[in-house]
Order: sequence, then C-alpha cells, then structure tokens
Amino acid sequence: MSKRVHEILSWYAGDNPGTLTNLARLLDHGRLAGTGKLVILPVDQGFEHGPARSFAGNPAGYDPRYHFQLAIDAGCNGYAVPLILKLNNHDTLVDEKDPISAQTGSVKDALRLGCVAIGYTIYPGSAQCREMYQQLRDLSEEAKAAGLAVVVWSYPRGSALSKEGETAIDIVAYAAQIAAQLGAHLIKVKLPSAHLEQAAAKKAYESAKVPIATLADRVRHVVQSAFDGRRIVIFSGGAKEDDQTFFNDVRAIRDGGGFGSIIGRNSFQRPKADALKFLETVMKLYAGEMP
Amino acid sequence: MSKRVHEILSWYAGDNPGTLTNLARLLDHGRLAGTGKLVILPVDQGFEHGPARSFAGNPAGYDPRYHFQLAIDAGCNGYAVPLILKLNNHDTLVDEKDPISAQTGSVKDALRLGCVAIGYTIYPGSAQCREMYQQLRDLSEEAKAAGLAVVVWSYPRGSALSKEGETAIDIVAYAAQIAAQLGAHLIKVKLPSAHLEQAAAKKAYESAKVPIATLADRVRHVVQSAFDGRRIVIFSGGAKEDDQTFFNDVRAIRDGGGFGSIIGRNSFQRPKADALKFLETVMKLYAGEMP
Amino acid sequence: MSKRVHEILSWYAGDNPGTLTNLARLLDHGRLAGTGKLVILPVDQGFEHGPARSFAGNPAGYDPRYHFQLAIDAGCNGYAVPLILKLNNHDTLVDEKDPISAQTGSVKDALRLGCVAIGYTIYPGSAQCREMYQQLRDLSEEAKAAGLAVVVWSYPRGSALSKEGETAIDIVAYAAQIAAQLGAHLIKVKLPSAHLEQAAAKKAYESAKVPIATLADRVRHVVQSAFDGRRIVIFSGGAKEDDQTFFNDVRAIRDGGGFGSIIGRNSFQRPKADALKFLETVMKLYAGEMP
Amino acid sequence: MSKRVHEILSWYAGDNPGTLTNLARLLDHGRLAGTGKLVILPVDQGFEHGPARSFAGNPAGYDPRYHFQLAIDAGCNGYAVPLILKLNNHDTLVDEKDPISAQTGSVKDALRLGCVAIGYTIYPGSAQCREMYQQLRDLSEEAKAAGLAVVVWSYPRGSALSKEGETAIDIVAYAAQIAAQLGAHLIKVKLPSAHLEQAAAKKAYESAKVPIATLADRVRHVVQSAFDGRRIVIFSGGAKEDDQTFFNDVRAIRDGGGFGSIIGRNSFQRPKADALKFLETVMKLYAGEMP
Amino acid sequence: MSKRVHEILSWYAGDNPGTLTNLARLLDHGRLAGTGKLVILPVDQGFEHGPARSFAGNPAGYDPRYHFQLAIDAGCNGYAVPLILKLNNHDTLVDEKDPISAQTGSVKDALRLGCVAIGYTIYPGSAQCREMYQQLRDLSEEAKAAGLAVVVWSYPRGSALSKEGETAIDIVAYAAQIAAQLGAHLIKVKLPSAHLEQAAAKKAYESAKVPIATLADRVRHVVQSAFDGRRIVIFSGGAKEDDQTFFNDVRAIRDGGGFGSIIGRNSFQRPKADALKFLETVMKLYAGEMP
Repeated sequence: MSKRVHEILSWYAGDNPGTLTNLARLLDHGRLAGTGKLVILPVDQGFEHGPARSFAGNPAGYDPRYHFQLAIDAGCNGYAVPLILKLNNHDTLVDEKDPISAQTGSVKDALRLGCVAIGYTIYPGSAQCREMYQQLRDLSEEAKAAGLAVVVWSYPRGSALSKEGETAIDIVAYAAQIAAQLGAHLIKVKLPSAHLEQAAAKKAYESAKVPIATLADRVRHVVQSAFDGRRIVIFSGGAKEDDQTFFNDVRAIRDGGGFGSIIGRNSFQRPKADALKFLETVMKLYAGEMP
Repeated sequence: MSKRVHEILSWYAGDNPGTLTNLARLLDHGRLAGTGKLVILPVDQGFEHGPARSFAGNPAGYDPRYHFQLAIDAGCNGYAVPLILKLNNHDTLVDEKDPISAQTGSVKDALRLGCVAIGYTIYPGSAQCREMYQQLRDLSEEAKAAGLAVVVWSYPRGSALSKEGETAIDIVAYAAQIAAQLGAHLIKVKLPSAHLEQAAAKKAYESAKVPIATLADRVRHVVQSAFDGRRIVIFSGGAKEDDQTFFNDVRAIRDGGGFGSIIGRNSFQRPKADALKFLETVMKLYAGEMP
Repeated sequence: MSKRVHEILSWYAGDNPGTLTNLARLLDHGRLAGTGKLVILPVDQGFEHGPARSFAGNPAGYDPRYHFQLAIDAGCNGYAVPLILKLNNHDTLVDEKDPISAQTGSVKDALRLGCVAIGYTIYPGSAQCREMYQQLRDLSEEAKAAGLAVVVWSYPRGSALSKEGETAIDIVAYAAQIAAQLGAHLIKVKLPSAHLEQAAAKKAYESAKVPIATLADRVRHVVQSAFDGRRIVIFSGGAKEDDQTFFNDVRAIRDGGGFGSIIGRNSFQRPKADALKFLETVMKLYAGEMP
Repeated sequence: MSKRVHEILSWYAGDNPGTLTNLARLLDHGRLAGTGKLVILPVDQGFEHGPARSFAGNPAGYDPRYHFQLAIDAGCNGYAVPLILKLNNHDTLVDEKDPISAQTGSVKDALRLGCVAIGYTIYPGSAQCREMYQQLRDLSEEAKAAGLAVVVWSYPRGSALSKEGETAIDIVAYAAQIAAQLGAHLIKVKLPSAHLEQAAAKKAYESAKVPIATLADRVRHVVQSAFDGRRIVIFSGGAKEDDQTFFNDVRAIRDGGGFGSIIGRNSFQRPKADALKFLETVMKLYAGEMP
Repeated sequence: MSKRVHEILSWYAGDNPGTLTNLARLLDHGRLAGTGKLVILPVDQGFEHGPARSFAGNPAGYDPRYHFQLAIDAGCNGYAVPLILKLNNHDTLVDEKDPISAQTGSVKDALRLGCVAIGYTIYPGSAQCREMYQQLRDLSEEAKAAGLAVVVWSYPRGSALSKEGETAIDIVAYAAQIAAQLGAHLIKVKLPSAHLEQAAAKKAYESAKVPIATLADRVRHVVQSAFDGRRIVIFSGGAKEDDQTFFNDVRAIRDGGGFGSIIGRNSFQRPKADALKFLETVMKLYAGEMP
C-alpha cells in the first residue's frame, strides 16, 4: 500500500478494519492504484435516464457485461473488481419538484455480491430530505458494521432551490458538508459554478473573501468543506460535452485537490475504442503523467 | 465528586448506575469540574447553517479536530472527553414552517464512539412535534437502557408561534417543562425575552405576579419550570454579538440559577487565541471568580 | 380484600392474575381502600397546559415530589404507591382541530418504574382517532400480557364535534362505551351536560325517555354505557371552580354510581393545607361518611 | 416504610424503581412487615420430592390453595400476596451426580401472574454449573428490566463435593458469595455445619481464626460472605425435625444476623392448627417478641 | 484471473457472487496467486496448545503482529490480506475424551474485520459431533449469505477412534467427505497414514485395491473423497520435524493433487530468516519451480 493510501486511510481511523480493507481495495486497484485518485464508471443510467437515452447511441451498452469489460480494459477502479452497489435509484418517468429515490438494493445484496461499498443518493434541498437522510443513516450503520464503505451522491435538488442553485458553489459545498456529516467515506458532487444561491451564504463568502473565481478554486473550497479535505470527494462530469472541455475539468479537479471523476455517459455512449482512448487520457491526467 | 455534583445526581435517582456515571463524567470534567456548571461547545453548525457561514470567518474550523483542540485548551466540559452525540440535525436548505430534524445518528453510534450522552432537538410548536416527541422517547429509552444520558435541545418553532413567540418567556418555560417530562437529563433552551405569547399564559403570569422583568428573573423562572430546578438547564447564546453583552447574559444565567451555556459560533468563529480568552472569561463568571 | 373489591374484580375475569393483582393494589390502597371508590391525582398538567398556567398559583407544584406528598398526606389511591404511567401526552402549543397525543412512555417504562397501570388518552371524534385506537390496542395488549392494568382517558374532541358536544351526554356515554370496548379497565370521562349532540341519538334518548335531567342521572347513564356498570368509570373535574359546586358534583358521581374522581388543578393549585381539607371532604363523600 | 426497610433498600441502589418497589412489597407485608425479616413458604416440594413424600402426611397439602390459605392465616410474607415464581425445578426421578434443574417458568409468566420476584436454583459444584449460571444471568437481566426482584436458591451439590461438603461452612459461604455476584437480591442457603471441605479454604479459615464454632457464628459468616451483609440471606430449614431444635435454629439465624427462614415441610406436613401455632412461634422469634 | 482459478471457481457455481469473489481473493493473492495452490499460516496455537508450548521457542511469536509480517514477507496467501477468522477454539485445560470446541467468534466479527472466510473445526468421531455439525451448518448459512467463504478443519478425534485411527487413511478420507457435505469451500485435514481403522472400510479398500501405499496415493484418495477433487483440500503439517521430511510431504501433497499446506509451528517456531527460507522452498515446490 502506498504512503498516500495510508494517509487517506488515516482519516477514517474510527472505522473498523473491514471498512478500511474495502477502502484500500477501492484505492489500490487498477491503473491509478496507490495514487489516491479514482475514476469510477457508473452503470445506473438505464434506470436514471431510460435505456434509449442512455444506450441507443452505442447499443453495446444495453448489455450490462459491456460496462464491466470497458472498466477492466480501461483499468478503472471502482468498477471491475471493486464494486459499489447503489442502494437507491430514481427514474425520470415521474419528475417531482421534491425528489426522493427509491431503495432498490440492500446491504445484504452488497455482501452477497461481494461489493466493497454501498452507494446512496441524497437530494439536499428536497422537502423529502429528512426521509433520505434517515434511510442513509440506517443503511450506513448496517453497511459499516459489515465492513463495507459508504459512497454518497450528494446532488442538491428540490423546490427550495433555483435550477442555477443546484450547482451554486455555496450549495455544492453545503451538500459536501452534509454528506460528510452523514458518514460518507466517498462523496460525489457535481462541478460547482461561481453562482451563490443563499443570501446569508453570499454575505459570508464575500466578507471572508473565499476565492471562487476559477473551477480549481471552487473544487478546492468544496474539498475543504468536507472536513477540511479529510474526506474523498469525487466530481461527476454530467452530460456529454466536448472532450477538451472535459479534460480541462479533470485538470481543475486535480489541481484543486479533488480525488477523481465519475464518468458515465461520456464513456459508454461512444464506441469502445474511443472510450478507452478517452479514459486513458483522463487516467494520465490524474496520474500526473500529463500537464 | 463534589457535594454539589452529588446533590445534582440525587435528582436523577430513578436512572441506572450507567447513566449516573455518565452524568458525573459530564459534571466532573474540565475547568468547571464539581461546580455544577457546564460550558458546552457544539460542532453541528456546518450541517445546521452550511460550511461557509460557519467556518469561512475562521477557516481552521473546517477541520473537525480544531473544535476538539479548542475545547481541550479552553477546559470546557461537554466536549473534549465527554462527548454528546447529536442524533438529529436540520439544515437550512429547506425552510419549512413546521420544522422537524432528520435522525442522523443512533444510540449504537454513541456507544461505539464512547459518548456520555445523546443529544436531540425538538421543536415544540411545530405541527410535526408529535413525531419528534415519539422519536425522542424511543431513542431515550434505548439510550438510558445503555447507560447514556439524554440532552434535549428544546427550541420552540412552527406555524403555531409568532417569530417573537419563539423566545417568549411563557413559551421557553413551557419548552423546558416539555423536555423535562420527555425525560431529558440536560435541557437546552434559548435565552427568553419578557414577551408573553399565549393569552391564557399571560393571564396566569400576571395574576400570580411571576417576576420576569430582568433576564436573571426569566432564567430563574425557566429553571423552576424544569421540575422546580431539579433538571440541568443550559442556555444557548445565539449568533455572534458584542462580548460584553454576552458576558452580561452569562451573569444573568448564573445569577438566575442556570447551569451554563452552549457556545458555538461565538467561540469558533474567532481566532483561537481570542476564543480561549473569551471562554476563560465565561468560565470565570460561572466559577464565581468574577462578579 | 373487601367483598366490594372482590365483586369489582369479578368483572375482569378474563384478565390474568397479574392484572387482577394490580387492580387490587389500586383499589385496596389509602383512605378509600376497599370501598370500590377512587380519587386519583394526575400530574401531567405541566405538559398539557404549560407550567405557569398549572403551577404559578401554588409554586410548590413546580416540584414533582410535592404531588406525591400531597397524595400520601391526603390518603388518595391511584397515586402514592400505586402509580399509573401515562403513556401519551398533548401540549397546547399546537392547537389542532383534530388532536392526537404523542406517545411519551412505554410499557417497559411502566414495569421499570413499578407501576400498577398504564394510562392513555383517546380523542373520540378526532379525524386521527383510528391511529390512537390502534396505538392504544397495541399498548394494551403488551401491558396486559405483563400484568398491568389499563386506564383510558376518553375525551371527545375534534372537527366532528361542536364545543358543546364534547361534554354532551350522548357523546360522553359513547366515549365511555368506546373505551370499554377498547379494553380499558378504568375509564376516565368528563362530567356530561344534558345537551344531546347527535340528531339520531337525540331521537333515541327522547323516544326511550332516558333520564338525563340531573347530573346523577347522567352519571348513571354513562356508567351503564360502560358494560352496564361493569367497568370502573371515573370522572374528571375540569378547571378550578367553587368548592361547593365541586362537592355537589362528587355527590352526583357517588349517587349516580360513579367510581370516583380525578382531581388535578382543583387540588394542587391551592395551598397544601387547603388542598388536604378539600380532599378530605371529597373522600368523606365517597366513603359515605357525609351526605 | 420502616427505617430498616429503607436501609435494606439502600443496598440495592443500582436497581431500578420497579425492582425496589417489589422488594419493598416483599419486606412490607404480613406479620413481620417493616422488621427486615422474612418467613417464606415454598410450594415446590411436590415437584422436588414427589407428592406422597410431600403431602401424604397431611393430605390437605395436595390442594395448592391450602398453601396460600396457610400463608395468609399465618401472616407470612413472601407468599400470600407477594408471590415469587420459581423458574426452575428439579425432580428426584433422576438422581444425577451433577444435577441441573429444568427451566419450568419464564419472566413473562411471573409478570402475568403478578409476582414480585422470580426464583431460581443453582447447584455450585455441579459439572453443569456453567449452564445454570448463564441461564440465571439471562433470566435476571430480563426480570430486573421488568422491575422484578431475583431470589436465588444456592445449594452446593455435584461430583466435585462430598456429601458432608454440601453444607460445610466454607462451601455454603462460597455459595452465598456466588449467588450475590450473580445478581441475587435474596439468597437462600442451607444452615452450615462446622465442617471445612476444601483443603486450601481450611488453611485460610484456620490461619485467620474465623469463628465458626456456634451456628450463630456460622450464620454471621455466611451473611458476611454475601457482600458483607448487604444482601438479604435466608436459611432453609431442611427435613422435618424436633420443634425445639427448629426454634433454636431460628434463634441462631436471628442472632447471627440472618434475614429469615424458608419453611416448607416443617409447616405443611402437620395439621393446619399445629402449623399456625408453629409459625406463630417462628414469627415471634424473628420479631424479637421472644428471647 | 488465471484459467486454473476460473476452473476452481466453476466447482462452486451454486455459491453467490460475494463468496466467489472472496474465494478468488484467496486464490489470487501472494506468491502462489493464480496457481490454484495455497499456503496458509494459522495463528490459533496459543489458544489450542497454551502460550509457552507455542511461542517460548521463538519468543517473537508472542506478538500477534509477528505472524502477519511473517506471512506478508513470505508471500503466503490465506493470511496477509485475505484473512480467515476461526470461529471456534479448543484449549487443553480440560482434556475430554470427546472434544468439542467453544465458539469464540461470529460471522459479524469476520465482516467487521474484513475477512474473506470463516474457519471452523469439527471433530468427526467425537460423541459431540452432532452439536458441532449443527453449529457449523448455522454459521455456514450465515457466512455464505454474507458472501464469505467457509474453511473447515476436519480432525477426527473422540472415544470412537483409536489414537492411530485419527490419521488412518479411511478416517481422513471420511472426514474430508463429511466436511465437503457440510458445505466447506476449503477443507483442512491431516496427512493420512496407511493404517485402516474401520474393519468394514478395510475390506472395501482391499477388495477394490485402492492404492494407498505412498503418501501421494493417499493424498489423491483424500482429494477424491471430497467430491472427486472438486473441493479445495489443504493438508496440515503437524508438529516440528525434519525439514527434508516436510518438503517431501509437500511434494507428495503436490503430486497427489492436494491444494496446499497449512503451516503453523513449523514456520513460527524458528527464527524469522530461517522461516522465510523454509517457506520460500515450500512455495517453489507448490509453484512447480522445484522438482
């Protein structure tokens, strides 16, 4: 185990040896093993966005085994062997103002399937956040007792927030803080904009002159908001966009002290050869082999 | 153990030896050990108010370990060694008229972490109070059976109350009474104003000529409302304000027979040296070493 | 054990010996032991009406121990040694049209505290009555299996009733019947007025010429409505009023075959010497030592 | 409650109010109420020794109700109202070298039947002691949580002991200590002889010159062995013998600081009038009304 | 994953993915990764034989961490990262004819500690085998549901067997069969002698001319007895002996189709440098790098 992985594990000293073992399995696997960085390939898009929106562009993706093979071939971690079982999911057939995902898996399932972690999405800002927080708490307690790690997707949404506010820097930082306090080992947030949503927060940012001008600044602030950088914070890339933009975002995550990316549609919605080349560049950026 | 601590413990004779031991740990720790007074440093503001509003002014506070060190250096009790695990939390992303906090921790967590007590917030006056009271009851029964003490934040809020009513003397006294009857060992309330919210109560106060003119009077009445002074009642200081005002509040708490303060933003939102000096003054006031 | 207590216990032949033992403890205690009559002192007013409205008039009442001593000195039953743990409570901070109390205690608490019975309030007429009836049923089943007796406060309230209807004779009789069928061993109702709330009931009362003119008539009818007098029905006195009126009410309860009174604010809101004299008169009336 | 009962209850400060209430019920009942002394009539002989050996001499004893009436008429405590449910029993059809009783009742039974305590027999010295100790521990935990007291019959027996050793002073004192450490509130042992069974113990008794010459000396030593006299220790009378011998044994128990007797065959194997006279003498001796 | 590991996993097709993952972790780790062979270092000797008998010869072994480091340095599998938690243990303070181990760990412990498998010892031939088989069954069911693998030590012992019979070829083969049928994924047996214990078995072996002359023959027969070679069978080395003898045993295990060794006292009872050289030879033999 590398020094960096040792250092990261030291932040989770209150966890039991089983959970630390599984965190180590996650961090010591694949192309980025030992760097403390992660690239995670999610495969819940079929449920989240519907099959055609997810897979019609590259029909190989309809087959769940394709995603496993893509991850193995690309040398990702968080996928091939070290699996994360997402315990809740949301579909887009119903579009509530105050969303809440349905629990679709259990800690027992995660153990039965040999996973290293459970995953769970919360929507801070939803009127139903209380129910999600409590369900996450219960599942976390059970997962941790069984030696699993806990990965939280913290995506602000709900009637309390404007559309722009969902990725506002104050809100994304707040979402990272909430996930950390709810006991997440890994936290996934969206890349933040420079917008400030809450009036009281705006005042605090301005009076303390918190630097939020560049994306790297904002990543740094979000990571700081998760126990002063002592939690693994990963950023999701969102919808398909121009590759150079995506690589620049990865550079900002890296330079701001972020721990990696979760890359869904940007990887599996293109032909496999393309995807492997694309992921190779991302890994090189995180491994510090490219400027 | 001092005579005063013995006397305080005698009020909880129905509790089991484990709970009494943990109450004694809380009362016999730090600078104020044995005086029967407490100063408690809370660290849930990141969740309650967002990270930047809480920590940007003194960025050392982003690191959870800072707060532990501050408490140890200041000689507080209720913090450094004797931990209270807050089992529910509320964020400000959603601002409901009738609030209810999410359960974010469990009695098992508190035991696993070696805490002396659980903490729980109720909002008397919220239309959701019934659910909170029952959840508190269930958690209290479990906590007490495991020898933990129970600390209740009793903060009136909800559509049944005016903004001014949230700190009205009749309402704060009522909130203390409810917490006591729900089985709290320690009760935290806000400092009450001289306002009287409920018409029926106003009549009772006026006909019985209950003295509520000074803050010390009001503190005395709130303490009396918690089983005639036989429950530990602590007062929270609220937002950052002028230090002399704060110290005068502490004097009133002390002179009115209150048991101490919970001091959050007033301590960790200033540089550490400042905070230590500030807390030193508070402790001296409670220890009776300053007029 | 007196013949009368034997006779009363014979009405509960389906209950287990533990429950009968605890009913006997309730009936064979204090000044009225063996008479089959009870005077019960409740101490939940602080929660139900707020501390100042309850105790400011006689501040000794802020101390819970005062109420125990008052009961012991007055020779009440249902209080000093034989305790009833009220398992639900309601406060007046929120004033819903369709009230429901919060569960604030458990059968385990009652056993742990050495109580002889649990108490529970239902509000027949509230839109939430179904939930209360089911919770009462569950708690009763558990309490009876553990040998405890069950005391039900049956207080009609809710959007289905007029204010006057809450104490209407047809409604109070109905509430007593519901409590009896829900398995109460002791039933507490308010003293009924001659008002008839429900049109269909009014017709029945008038065509059958049910005597409801005097208070004793109405008490008799309520007792009859609880399994033809084979359940212990107690009447609550309500707010502070003129003593002679109160004594006349007690006479009516006695003459109508009621089993006793529950006396809260009328006892503890006056100086202790006064209260003892007042309760002495009540006991004499029930013991048949005064006309 | 007498001062002596208050003093005895103070030894059990770690117990909950329900258990203290039931101990008080045991100590505050019948002819010896308030003296801190008890006479208990057991009715398990039919099971333990067979019906004819138990009841043929006084056939009225075949009817379980006879024993209740005998106890009520004699003014015993531990019987009439305050019942102890014996949760395990042993018969003499099988005579194992290393005995263990069968569990024949439960804590739920004790609650259902309105008992104040559970009873349980252990055989220290049996190869099966581990199983008995564990079962007692489990039942005690459950009983105490439900507010019941725990009475332990501690009768040394088994292949590790000689016949004479079963009542040797070192062994009986050891048995009392084990029962106290296993959590008994009341401990029943047999009257000890001056024999010393274990070589290592013999050396200790002789070098420390522990007085064991008279029966009162030995009773005093056994009581001392149960937390230095801070547990209620009762002695069983054994088989039918001469009345004067029995009364002298009672004098020795009383003078040695023992808390009373459990009297089975000596009471119910004689005609009722005789038995009442016999028990009257025992009570007078314990009440200090006879020398 | 190598073809051989794929082939081995195919024998366990009825198991869930989690168990297969953990078997793969066991087989794909360390110096022998992918070969299908295992060398396992056990550390339960302190409990099984007493500390001095186990560690006095090489006192470094008193420290549990020594064994971990030895395994990591030697490149063993079954030890360093992939841990097996032994759930039962036996001491030699009581030396029963018909042994049974005490359960000293749980499946929850194994999960909490991040283990890949549970271990359990059965003593076929003990009069208490029924109890062991049932406990193993229950623990296996729980472990497999949680995705853990099950390792069974199957050591014939008990009043039904002669001392020589404990390692007789018919008995060891029988023990392997029993472990396989009880659901073991890995089976540990002792190296068998050519002795035939049971008369009926002797007849069968002789009439069928089962080859049992050489150790390799006998290993082959034992492996065959475990579902015709479709279970992983490991052999334990027993007490300290001459190294060349030990290596020849390893050659026989390898040539007979055995899957590896469990090496306790032969590794940790010698200085570390020695032990590493010794284990290096064992690994080379299993890897086929030495004749």
